[in-house]
Amino acid sequence: MDEGKRLSSSVDVKARHLAAERIRESFEKICKAILVGEEPKLIIPKRTLANTVYNSEKGILILGSATFERSFIDAKESRKFMQTMLMARIIYEALINNEYPTIRDLFYRGKHSIRYRDHKGRTGEENTWDEQKESDSVLRDIEVYVNLLREEMLILSKEKGKVVGDMRIRSGDDIIDLSKMGHGAYSIEPTPDLIEFIDVNAEFVLVVEKDAVFQQLHRAGFWRKYRALLITSAGQPDRATRRFVRRLNEELNLPVYILTDADPYGWYIYSVFKIGSITLSYESERLATPKAKFLGVSMTDIFGDKERGKKSYLSESERRNFIIKAKKTDIKRAQELLNYEWFKTEGWRKEINIFMEKQSKLEIEALTGKGLYFLTDTYIPMKIEAKDFIE
Amino acid sequence: MDEGKRLSSSVDVKARHLAAERIRESFEKICKAILVGEEPKLIIPKRTLANTVYNSEKGILILGSATFERSFIDAKESRKFMQTMLMARIIYEALINNEYPTIRDLFYRGKHSIRYRDHKGRTGEENTWDEQKESDSVLRDIEVYVNLLREEMLILSKEKGKVVGDMRIRSGDDIIDLSKMGHGAYSIEPTPDLIEFIDVNAEFVLVVEKDAVFQQLHRAGFWRKYRALLITSAGQPDRATRRFVRRLNEELNLPVYILTDADPYGWYIYSVFKIGSITLSYESERLATPKAKFLGVSMTDIFGDKERGKKSYLSESERRNFIIKAKKTDIKRAQELLNYEWFKTEGWRKEINIFMEKQSKLEIEALTGKGLYFLTDTYIPMKIEAKDFIE
Repeated sequence: MDEGKRLSSSVDVKARHLAAERIRESFEKICKAILVGEEPKLIIPKRTLANTVYNSEKGILILGSATFERSFIDAKESRKFMQTMLMARIIYEALINNEYPTIRDLFYRGKHSIRYRDHKGRTGEENTWDEQKESDSVLRDIEVYVNLLREEMLILSKEKGKVVGDMRIRSGDDIIDLSKMGHGAYSIEPTPDLIEFIDVNAEFVLVVEKDAVFQQLHRAGFWRKYRALLITSAGQPDRATRRFVRRLNEELNLPVYILTDADPYGWYIYSVFKIGSITLSYESERLATPKAKFLGVSMTDIFGDKERGKKSYLSESERRNFIIKAKKTDIKRAQELLNYEWFKTEGWRKEINIFMEKQSKLEIEALTGKGLYFLTDTYIPMKIEAKDFIE
Repeated sequence: MDEGKRLSSSVDVKARHLAAERIRESFEKICKAILVGEEPKLIIPKRTLANTVYNSEKGILILGSATFERSFIDAKESRKFMQTMLMARIIYEALINNEYPTIRDLFYRGKHSIRYRDHKGRTGEENTWDEQKESDSVLRDIEVYVNLLREEMLILSKEKGKVVGDMRIRSGDDIIDLSKMGHGAYSIEPTPDLIEFIDVNAEFVLVVEKDAVFQQLHRAGFWRKYRALLITSAGQPDRATRRFVRRLNEELNLPVYILTDADPYGWYIYSVFKIGSITLSYESERLATPKAKFLGVSMTDIFGDKERGKKSYLSESERRNFIIKAKKTDIKRAQELLNYEWFKTEGWRKEINIFMEKQSKLEIEALTGKGLYFLTDTYIPMKIEAKDFIE
């Protein structure tokens, strides 16, 4: 243990202490209730869809005010109650023992069979949990109950997000210059709240969905020439990438532009960055970037927009060569998106309508197929300059 | 273009020049043949399975000596011939125009319809290619024809591999200290042959399949305490990660240990690192690390090995809680592996036989479930110390 502690960064030691204290405080009341003979119960905010609200002022999904009680002395709830206590214990022990569990770890750490004797004296056996979705659900309850994200409890996860740009950060005990990554990039850590922003020389953040396009823009010197922080989520963004982008926007006041394929999957990626994930709305308050702008590739980039006198970025023959026919699942997803309040804006209605009419989609690589410098020196700067994005 | 050139690193400018020259030389003979009225044809090494040989001395899969002719004046071959010339032109132009295409780009750049008039005067239309697998296949032909990997032709791709450790490298025009990455990591570039190794202070390379486990080992200071270079492939390894690992082994003489889940998928990941991919054997000569060792998690770690007097790392109750029942696809894959020459060793036969008998698999996270410091301070160092790995 001591060995471990010495190898940990001072940042982690502090975060660990804070989280352990918060958990201790939150669960101490349960122990106190038991000691004075009261019924032990937890009052937890509801994570149901019915208690998920789109807050149009903040522009994000948040949890409503509904809560529920989880009581030990209730046959229906006692299993869940015990699971919650078990998970809290595992997390607390990991914190004070200087460990860094993953959610998969937490599942294994808690998984065992409990033998018991019932009121008629018969022996029985029951597993604490059988599948990870059970332990994950309990972990989420704890996140909302103690009001700490899992990352703040030093629970780690895989992490795909990368960044380069003219910026210095402190992570752990190191200072890292994100402009000195050569042809590689800096992989964002799984606990981005522990990053300290030292100084930045950039005018905006460009998030590209595809890692391969990120590699191209990086290599072509895009971020240097246009003073951008360049980020990729490498597909569907993970929590750390979303939190990192949010912090850049909120704390450094940098505008955030998101560049995805022109298809409903790309729109969904944008939506996760901007609004949050529908089923995990309690994260959004911390992870969503409500001011993020959809830079493209948009349907009007492909087909033009007569109303605004906007010309297409593609010629007729390029369109013929580059466009991909939409699949049924694309159409279905686009129809679903139309139901969401945050897609009911003028810009998105136009976007989705063109998609429905043309049943066509386009990959970013079709633009680099026109020439990489078309993307870096024409398309992206022109779009930003003309404010041709969807807010 | 000048703009682009100024933003490119000097390393890229040099690599670009070399590749463009090689392509020009390789294809100049075709032009010369046409000019003197000879039949233009390409002689290309065969990439078929029949021409893929396991070289037991080198310990890798390589291409045999068989070649084939691709001729323009042959109705069956002319389409492929033209595709090859088109792809060569696109790559050459990208090189001299300072671009960084991806394989998806190359597909779009070449995709168009050719209108023609046949010998009876009828007009027709034919696409250069319809799907990326066509353009990819032609790209591979060019790689073996000019004997350059795509990376050497500055063709980029997405890249998942990460590294941390006490090592300095030069990438592009920057010097990067891989021991100063804080809680993040260094994302390996898509062109790892352009990396220069400056100095290293490490005794071995540990490659972990899972990014989340990499995060844990990194955070717990494993690489610092045990003088390791810590790498993750984040699942199935990509070309750049494989090439980077190979270079560490070959040029720095560092032993390479690979840590995966205990299942046929993990074994396959190991096999790709060590031997290469069966369908793309021409890459192996550059990308495979024949000396890589399978550190675990092995079946004998789980069940022990009476023959060797080896005890299991798990207790009976841990086994009960942690083991996952193998699926039919796991069994099928294990049976396939038994057919490969490089799995026909004493160690692998035992490994696969135990798996077949127990029909059980285990994730690395089951070991971190026993405690992170069990993995870092007991399991990994003990296995290396006792040379308890499969070569």
